[in-house]
Amino acid sequence: MTPQTEFGIRPARLSWWGPAAFFLAEIVSGDSKLKSKQRILTWVLILFTSLASGGLAIAANDPLPSWEEGATKQAIVNFVQQTTDRSSPNFLPSAERIATFDNDGTLWPSHPIYVQLAFALDRINALTPQHPEWKTTMPFKAALENDFEALAAAGEKGILELIMASHAGMSTAEFETIVSEWFKTARHPRFKRPYTELAYQPMLEVLAYLRANEFKTYIVSGGGVEFMRPMTEAVYGIPPEQVLGSSIKTEYVLKDGKPVLIRLPELNFIDDKTGKPVGINNFIGRRPVAAFGNSGGDREMLEWTGAGTGPRLMMLVFHDDAEREYAYGPANGLPDTHFGTFSQALMDEAKQKGWAVISMKNDWRQIFQTER
Amino acid sequence: MTPQTEFGIRPARLSWWGPAAFFLAEIVSGDSKLKSKQRILTWVLILFTSLASGGLAIAANDPLPSWEEGATKQAIVNFVQQTTDRSSPNFLPSAERIATFDNDGTLWPSHPIYVQLAFALDRINALTPQHPEWKTTMPFKAALENDFEALAAAGEKGILELIMASHAGMSTAEFETIVSEWFKTARHPRFKRPYTELAYQPMLEVLAYLRANEFKTYIVSGGGVEFMRPMTEAVYGIPPEQVLGSSIKTEYVLKDGKPVLIRLPELNFIDDKTGKPVGINNFIGRRPVAAFGNSGGDREMLEWTGAGTGPRLMMLVFHDDAEREYAYGPANGLPDTHFGTFSQALMDEAKQKGWAVISMKNDWRQIFQTER
Repeated sequence: MTPQTEFGIRPARLSWWGPAAFFLAEIVSGDSKLKSKQRILTWVLILFTSLASGGLAIAANDPLPSWEEGATKQAIVNFVQQTTDRSSPNFLPSAERIATFDNDGTLWPSHPIYVQLAFALDRINALTPQHPEWKTTMPFKAALENDFEALAAAGEKGILELIMASHAGMSTAEFETIVSEWFKTARHPRFKRPYTELAYQPMLEVLAYLRANEFKTYIVSGGGVEFMRPMTEAVYGIPPEQVLGSSIKTEYVLKDGKPVLIRLPELNFIDDKTGKPVGINNFIGRRPVAAFGNSGGDREMLEWTGAGTGPRLMMLVFHDDAEREYAYGPANGLPDTHFGTFSQALMDEAKQKGWAVISMKNDWRQIFQTER
Repeated sequence: MTPQTEFGIRPARLSWWGPAAFFLAEIVSGDSKLKSKQRILTWVLILFTSLASGGLAIAANDPLPSWEEGATKQAIVNFVQQTTDRSSPNFLPSAERIATFDNDGTLWPSHPIYVQLAFALDRINALTPQHPEWKTTMPFKAALENDFEALAAAGEKGILELIMASHAGMSTAEFETIVSEWFKTARHPRFKRPYTELAYQPMLEVLAYLRANEFKTYIVSGGGVEFMRPMTEAVYGIPPEQVLGSSIKTEYVLKDGKPVLIRLPELNFIDDKTGKPVGINNFIGRRPVAAFGNSGGDREMLEWTGAGTGPRLMMLVFHDDAEREYAYGPANGLPDTHFGTFSQALMDEAKQKGWAVISMKNDWRQIFQTER
């Protein structure tokens, strides 16, 4: 096992290429004229620069210090270098540099349950005094008893009922306050940190790296757009206008003479699966050149992104790190957990189409964001 | 009548404040020591600087040279200066500088008919060989005969039928090509220029002025979003991702193994009246601080914008210039033309709420964009 800190940081690996090259040069050239003192000085210098390049320089110059060296990291760096190099045939004008990111399981955890489902359950609990009938009615009964098996059995319809009961009936401004307040106190059951501190550090680095290279970064999530917007700017540096998600209908009404938007218990748009390219076309009106996901819900977004001409980068985060986060598939024989399913078919398609699969275990030195 | 060029440019007015002040100073001071030569030189200098400030300087330093001096122009300048001045109580962080613009009648003409309706009619004509039944069926018959009275009688349902027949049934990529090709050849019936050259010069200056001051400029139009996006970047400098509009549903399907989005003959969203704040909340997720419109369809957008706290700018373009463009209301006793209706109730509300009404006739020196 690699030693880890609280946040799973592995020590930066030192570069041994410098000393190795010097050692080799000494052997090959057979240069015996170098005096001991000079040689010692040279070794010290080389060691120092090696340490610098292996350690300090990673922090200073490497845009992706939390990524292990390897093909996955290199694919990101190559893509950015080529698309921003005017002399490259893969150069893209900055207006076309659109990158889309799924949220749950791609930028932060979707386990043990979706963050928004945790919010819905907390909210159902808070509202139960006004709805005593929930204690004996499904799916509310299951929600109140944290009976995830029964919840799963209630299916999509059941989940939808919970969402509508917990997400509708107030103004958009009131909902924003409810969500913001919840994020302040809610904690992840395993990691005991606020959800807003559980962004994946390697993905934060990709977002920042892309933006530093004039990419516009978007969230395109199956999650509720008004559940995400109160936190995306602070957590990911993504402003509300670059967040796409599922939504319920709203109605414009006057309340005490002031206009408000009331959230209705009626679905407006499901931003998942084929809904992702539909939403991207409707909201952004451009095809992304880079897309990041982690599950079957992202398949069509990657397919749509890849179907454009010119340079493309499609990546899927694979959760294979039970120790530092979670391990689930069912691809590669990992457990099937129903939240962010990564099927074997998706894994096979990724290989066939050249979509890079990010191994959380092998590609990421650190999982969660560094404490600020 | 003020003299005009082809594009309705009035000659820049010279500033006479300089010479007037000097003349006054001479009278007041009674200074007789100035030698004739000096006095002549001074007059020449003053005349030169007056010409410069009245003419050249307008082009060089005035962000709104096509606007007549006055309260309307000053309202725009004051708003921008206050919201960008860190020492002002009305300062806004750049992230909050969101300005929304209606399109038809606000950024370009909506007369004699909406540009998109002209497109629909041309397209109905082009498709008629494949639909011989249209020659005898309403509302297609009216469209083919340019019978606007009968079209008006067919009402919203009739217009919708025309839109669906002319805007659906192809992929989004195909539709983009159709629209782009149409814009290349279509001409405005009165001004004989491509529609894409009929943007209002004063509004182009407002857009550029706001963007130069780190405002994000959005189009929020009742028009079809995919009809506008092919031209908004070139005409207004507004990228597709900052264009909101009405939309029809699309379906993600594979065609010869490649994914396409097929445009369905089914309404998705009407971005008009109360739909504008609903769309702004859904797409942008922030309340605008400035909103520009020209008709009853923009009322709720201005109301929603004005209901926020902090500095606000709400403006309505009033078409009162039959000579250089069009004059219609029915506000202020102008004709009621059904395309971009500006009711007396809206005029009264604007006055009551402090929404500035832009008089095309009195506030704009030039109507259409300068030829490039």
